[in-house]
Amino acid sequence: MKVSERLRKDADDIWEKIIKHPFVTELYNGTLPMGKFRFYILQDYNYLTSSIKNFSIISSKADSIDSMREVIEILHLESVSEFKGYEEFLRKLGYRIEDAGNIEPTPTNISYVNFLLSTSSLKSYAESITSVLPCFWSYAEIAEHHKDKLSKNENKLYVDWALVYLSKPYVNLVEKIKRLVDKAGETTSYEMLKETFITASKYEYMYWDAIYNMNAWPI
Amino acid sequence: MKVSERLRKDADDIWEKIIKHPFVTELYNGTLPMGKFRFYILQDYNYLTSSIKNFSIISSKADSIDSMREVIEILHLESVSEFKGYEEFLRKLGYRIEDAGNIEPTPTNISYVNFLLSTSSLKSYAESITSVLPCFWSYAEIAEHHKDKLSKNENKLYVDWALVYLSKPYVNLVEKIKRLVDKAGETTSYEMLKETFITASKYEYMYWDAIYNMNAWPI
Amino acid sequence: MKVSERLRKDADDIWEKIIKHPFVTELYNGTLPMGKFRFYILQDYNYLTSSIKNFSIISSKADSIDSMREVIEILHLESVSEFKGYEEFLRKLGYRIEDAGNIEPTPTNISYVNFLLSTSSLKSYAESITSVLPCFWSYAEIAEHHKDKLSKNENKLYVDWALVYLSKPYVNLVEKIKRLVDKAGETTSYEMLKETFITASKYEYMYWDAIYNMNAWPI
Amino acid sequence: MKVSERLRKDADDIWEKIIKHPFVTELYNGTLPMGKFRFYILQDYNYLTSSIKNFSIISSKADSIDSMREVIEILHLESVSEFKGYEEFLRKLGYRIEDAGNIEPTPTNISYVNFLLSTSSLKSYAESITSVLPCFWSYAEIAEHHKDKLSKNENKLYVDWALVYLSKPYVNLVEKIKRLVDKAGETTSYEMLKETFITASKYEYMYWDAIYNMNAWPI
Repeated sequence: MKVSERLRKDADDIWEKIIKHPFVTELYNGTLPMGKFRFYILQDYNYLTSSIKNFSIISSKADSIDSMREVIEILHLESVSEFKGYEEFLRKLGYRIEDAGNIEPTPTNISYVNFLLSTSSLKSYAESITSVLPCFWSYAEIAEHHKDKLSKNENKLYVDWALVYLSKPYVNLVEKIKRLVDKAGETTSYEMLKETFITASKYEYMYWDAIYNMNAWPI
Repeated sequence: MKVSERLRKDADDIWEKIIKHPFVTELYNGTLPMGKFRFYILQDYNYLTSSIKNFSIISSKADSIDSMREVIEILHLESVSEFKGYEEFLRKLGYRIEDAGNIEPTPTNISYVNFLLSTSSLKSYAESITSVLPCFWSYAEIAEHHKDKLSKNENKLYVDWALVYLSKPYVNLVEKIKRLVDKAGETTSYEMLKETFITASKYEYMYWDAIYNMNAWPI
Repeated sequence: MKVSERLRKDADDIWEKIIKHPFVTELYNGTLPMGKFRFYILQDYNYLTSSIKNFSIISSKADSIDSMREVIEILHLESVSEFKGYEEFLRKLGYRIEDAGNIEPTPTNISYVNFLLSTSSLKSYAESITSVLPCFWSYAEIAEHHKDKLSKNENKLYVDWALVYLSKPYVNLVEKIKRLVDKAGETTSYEMLKETFITASKYEYMYWDAIYNMNAWPI
Repeated sequence: MKVSERLRKDADDIWEKIIKHPFVTELYNGTLPMGKFRFYILQDYNYLTSSIKNFSIISSKADSIDSMREVIEILHLESVSEFKGYEEFLRKLGYRIEDAGNIEPTPTNISYVNFLLSTSSLKSYAESITSVLPCFWSYAEIAEHHKDKLSKNENKLYVDWALVYLSKPYVNLVEKIKRLVDKAGETTSYEMLKETFITASKYEYMYWDAIYNMNAWPI
């Protein structure tokens, strides 16, 4: 079994809960309150900004020149098309880019980002590339699982958002990251990668949950 | 006003709550359930391990050779006497060192540590040295605030633990870190340091709270 | 005066010698022995590999999300078109890519690369982006200074190589890096940037010289 | 054979030349011109400053908490006693500490330091701890090889300098670093460590040579 498949299997309990989280279900069937979606877009724009920094660090640690060039492709894609996509959503929702820069990220958003950044800064390339896989991959699985709901979804914004993760380029991107993990996993202890993948999957769940509940700092 | 005093003043609301947190109050008056203290020592040993790594990174970024040599003094102290202190406590509680290495840190412990490590890895020396101040300083303020309770505290372990933070060497250590922050703060935007100090103070509160409630991962 | 112009002026003595170095002059007028050019292409392919790693690190430290996205554009360009260009030259010269990976870089090549990597790893973003400017900019100045020689240059390989640095995309790339330095320079001590720019310019000269003389390690 | 012994054996040709370099021989028999020794002390004080930063980085990457605590011991020793030793020498030679901070390091000094710093910043802990071994170890071998000359050496400064490297604490320090390399080497490709050890040994030779010839930048 490929390393990525084995990781996915070992995180199955958590992924079950990610895929069925109310935020996700309601988004796909169109019943998600718009206030929660607006909160999500603002939070996620902040996440994306740190994600780009994170991919820069991962690129600098890649295990070969070929892997580095593939990570740079992803970094460039994130920096250009993902950003453009989010900026379009911000505009459609009536926000200026500065609004997104001024909001306070949820504690879970901060914890997730600091987990990713301290992994890429201080751990191996294999652990770093593994830490970003649950986010990308689970968005594709969510889309695949809920796609039939979209035909009855009357919220055009939600449908537009979801279609990105069903698109060919996005599916290819996920496959590319899986291949990088499979390759890096060949020469790394599986247990270490599993711990990373499980922790990132937990954060992915907690991230949806914190946004659905619009959690602020407890103090 | 010195930068450190200004930071302390701007975090006053949070520090009020740290100093009066039930974990701390019960520890000083001796009523803290031993199970919670045991949980604390195991969690904190893990925190200490990462804290040493963190001081190594901060040292490598110090703004002058003099600051670097002072950070190395702190690092060495942590690595030798703090460690010895914790290992003694572990033994008194009947743990082996390996037991501490095998426990699962609370999500808050992990979030706090990743905040510190990503700050030292990716932000300025001034922000890095500021991020560690709330932990050291609040232990000294807690001790000062609650010290009168110790005469009636019948739990010798708790008294021994508390006396460390009233000792001359510990008070000197806190003063040394304050001076490093004051010096680094001369040439850095106060607002940036304030954000760092406030976030670290929030984590300090949440850390006590997570241990008092023995919080595990929500998933 | 813009920071980049001031830097260029303060390094004028060194740049004079770079622009008139025999390697460069002979390459543009076509008299450079082919053995030296072959040696150059193999050495420079190694330099390029490290340069990409270096830009990944610089990107992770950029002073704003806008600067980060511009550095990523450069990184992507280097990783795609510069690489393709070099791989074409390697093929034209009868080398396989692996041949380039197997040669021993000159001590000066190693010193230059380690200077760039330790700057980006341990110094500020402003110093890091400044450290890469002399390489890019001097290639454009060299091309501008010697371009009239190309009409009489009968070595098609040399002419092809030179035309890259006269092309619109390359000139735009240099302007982009200058703007990043100008922007980062607004909030940084000029003296620090000057030291970085001068050192990188010295390495640029020494790099040509080491290749012209095909220097190996003295031991 | 232990990894450290194997490395030493594979670098034998280079070490032969280090041990018999005129700077070293003349220093031990007392005929070294004082101007060269003064130049050496100023250069080496600069090297030491960077070496401390380097050990901080290595400490942050140590492969276990035990190794980290050992690296911190070395770092502390360097920061306290090595520094004090050099500052005493500077005073004996009539320099103020600031004089050492103001000199220009030789290109070889800079290249050696950047090699060490980019190794510790970007490569594995095993390669990082290996990169510092040749410096420490060769000083001990030099002292052992030339110690009989000291009885006839009439330059008290040179004798004082040399005795440090024959002292018990210094010999123990070298043994400690060898053990760290042996331990890290258990799980690392020998070829990678060999390349690091050989390169550092070459720089060690070139360092003596650059100081003996008081080399400045060629441009």
